Amino acid sequence: MALALDPTAQDLLFREAHTAHTFTGEPVDEEQIAAVYDLIKLAPTAFNQSPLRITLVQSAEARKRLVAQMAEGNRPRTATAPMTAILSVDLRFHERLPELLPSAPHIKDAHFSEQGPREAAGTFNATLQAGYFLLGVRAAGLAAGPMTGFDADGVDKEFFGDGRQKALLVVNIGRPGPDAYRPRNPRLAAAEAVTTV
Amino acid sequence: MALALDPTAQDLLFREAHTAHTFTGEPVDEEQIAAVYDLIKLAPTAFNQSPLRITLVQSAEARKRLVAQMAEGNRPRTATAPMTAILSVDLRFHERLPELLPSAPHIKDAHFSEQGPREAAGTFNATLQAGYFLLGVRAAGLAAGPMTGFDADGVDKEFFGDGRQKALLVVNIGRPGPDAYRPRNPRLAAAEAVTTV
Repeated sequence: MALALDPTAQDLLFREAHTAHTFTGEPVDEEQIAAVYDLIKLAPTAFNQSPLRITLVQSAEARKRLVAQMAEGNRPRTATAPMTAILSVDLRFHERLPELLPSAPHIKDAHFSEQGPREAAGTFNATLQAGYFLLGVRAAGLAAGPMTGFDADGVDKEFFGDGRQKALLVVNIGRPGPDAYRPRNPRLAAAEAVTTV
Repeated sequence: MALALDPTAQDLLFREAHTAHTFTGEPVDEEQIAAVYDLIKLAPTAFNQSPLRITLVQSAEARKRLVAQMAEGNRPRTATAPMTAILSVDLRFHERLPELLPSAPHIKDAHFSEQGPREAAGTFNATLQAGYFLLGVRAAGLAAGPMTGFDADGVDKEFFGDGRQKALLVVNIGRPGPDAYRPRNPRLAAAEAVTTV
């Protein structure tokens, strides 16, 4: 069954794209990440919550603080990637909801005044957006190296001291360097992952 | 800053795509969803966990059971969409990990023998995949209508009685019908969502 998306775009986003483990020295600038954001911000979140926040770790001092929170195996590439982004959820995303959902400003309080459900909803929707972001990095012609191996509390303390944000994923971004890719691992077949009732 | 992804593909996946609230009667068949899955299964998950499962609700009986668990406002479209998918996480995804990560079969027990961390990791990675799936539906030239408004425990009981899967998102899928789209809500500007340290 043919997809509507043309094969070149399928390759760029999915078929030829891989998680990169090394990067060239070519810099990634903030404008490129802003272009990625301006694309992926359009994809859906519940009630248009838009809770994803992106922190670009650029200064040597900030990078050092981040590297110290990464799992040991993730430290070398986080220390040397041309760009590293911390993806986080804004746990008080609801404060912006009257602007983001002007047709239903009551949703802010009706759905999100309680901290527990608010943080669960924000985390879920920011994670959907993290998925969009990884494909958005590829849409910019860049390779992404997403990592969950880090001390989440440590990153929150170092970078989000006010407690408002919670780190979800750390992503190295750049152009693939030598031996950047490992062989593709197998995937579950559609018949294993998709069932009909 | 230009993106590498061509403008037609940007429009298909992001700029012209919207959450659909009505659908035409044109059917969506299982092969189309399998094609979507075969595309998006290639996008990354931590340790290649691949924990997303997709349940296509096709029979009248199953659809009736699903509609009963939806929030009232979501019932009419869930009752009439040509295809509805329940996206869920396989909470025992780690059983497949030795096949999915043949280079590191020890990860299954080293990282995922404890239920709490395993379910948290699976839920996070299945949610990333849910983001990929929504864009994959659009890549198939179809419109998606994702919904978080449902009784999650009720859906789990109705469809995943063995407790192995947990519903994350219900998605109506089809071709946009009359008045399918609401006006696009505002989004946060890059300067608001992206910061540099």
